[in-house]
Amino acid sequence: MASLYLDEGAELAAVAAGDVVRLGGPEARHAVQVARVRLGERISIGDGRGTVVTGPVLESGQGELAIEVAELVREQPATPALVLVQALAKGDRDELAVQAATELGVDRIVPWAAARSVSRWEGAKAEKGRQRWATIAREASKQSIRAWVPEVAAATPTARLPELLAGTRLLVLEPTAERGLAQLELDERPLALLVGPEGGVATEELARLTAAGAEPVRLGPTVLRTSTAGPAAIALLSARLGRW
Amino acid sequence: MASLYLDEGAELAAVAAGDVVRLGGPEARHAVQVARVRLGERISIGDGRGTVVTGPVLESGQGELAIEVAELVREQPATPALVLVQALAKGDRDELAVQAATELGVDRIVPWAAARSVSRWEGAKAEKGRQRWATIAREASKQSIRAWVPEVAAATPTARLPELLAGTRLLVLEPTAERGLAQLELDERPLALLVGPEGGVATEELARLTAAGAEPVRLGPTVLRTSTAGPAAIALLSARLGRW
Repeated sequence: MASLYLDEGAELAAVAAGDVVRLGGPEARHAVQVARVRLGERISIGDGRGTVVTGPVLESGQGELAIEVAELVREQPATPALVLVQALAKGDRDELAVQAATELGVDRIVPWAAARSVSRWEGAKAEKGRQRWATIAREASKQSIRAWVPEVAAATPTARLPELLAGTRLLVLEPTAERGLAQLELDERPLALLVGPEGGVATEELARLTAAGAEPVRLGPTVLRTSTAGPAAIALLSARLGRW
Repeated sequence: MASLYLDEGAELAAVAAGDVVRLGGPEARHAVQVARVRLGERISIGDGRGTVVTGPVLESGQGELAIEVAELVREQPATPALVLVQALAKGDRDELAVQAATELGVDRIVPWAAARSVSRWEGAKAEKGRQRWATIAREASKQSIRAWVPEVAAATPTARLPELLAGTRLLVLEPTAERGLAQLELDERPLALLVGPEGGVATEELARLTAAGAEPVRLGPTVLRTSTAGPAAIALLSARLGRW
């Protein structure tokens, strides 16, 4: 079944069963021209803000689609929230992490300008980078038919993470940490997983983070790539928090 | 610290502390010429069969390396074993799964010629494909400094999986399954995770597998890409089996 999203900002919060929902823009054009969605076919439309409606296509043409709302699902955001603080990394390793973590259910993503991040988002690149990650998160949400698209924050340096994530328990993935994420006692606080770049978290950076209350934790006995660590941690925590 | 592997087939089983281990071939050449390993520097050499030796470099030159064994670690294979049966998939999605699952500790990998696998390994391509996955598993083991490199089987069609994996509990990842992997009761049997291609496991294929004793299980509430599902399942099971 095809699954589409409304344009960013548009919401389905006020829609009720039996209503007709219209979709325009590139999403609808793609559905009509590439995915060849047909009259009468059942499709899902989400707003990425908790609501997904499903129903048959009533009109389709010239890049417009209308469906009748036969089914309506509203989801509350999951609690406690899971945040991925992913260091900017070489190649597409950071983007792979964003994609997989979104499929696995992460709630919020913070691009982390870490001490050893080789890739830098500066000046005009900063907003472009954020938008690119937001698009990846949106596409991955669609692929996995998620009701909520994770929000992507602006790139944040180490010194500003504790303030940005006030009230959230900060866990720094660090292969040499004594405590394992699998054994960690969890409570009601939202959790943020900090995943360093390929070169790891720098010594002074780790000291600064722990001084601000962050806890170093290990994920298994091996050293993981930056694209593997975050998604694996999200999988483990989703199971431990009873989301799965 | 640099980490190298002996050529495939060579073993460190008979080595003792104080011995000198010599390494030749492309691995040693790469260490000397690219990674610029120096005399006196501590490096690790593994055989991928459970033994890793660590010690200072005694000789280095012309693509040869010798180290003195200062430290010697022998690891038993983990039990119960975790097997990833990964469907051949489009793009590099199957290879990404092999890479991440190896970092996370998978013990054996079976390339699965599934009903909906678009990619096919036939004729001369079959052994080439297997070798490519074996190389990816070896490189990923090195990256994560694993004592054991997972073995990669030949590509296997659905009908032959139950025989190949006799004595192993078969779990088919299927988004519509009622039982979740997170809730599954585990015992001493080795576990094989079957991950279908992008189009999923075909209906008749699933019926055939369940008739042979395989159990459909779900991983979370969303639909996952083939590159995400296997690594996430390995992470979850590693934690549940007390490996992490």
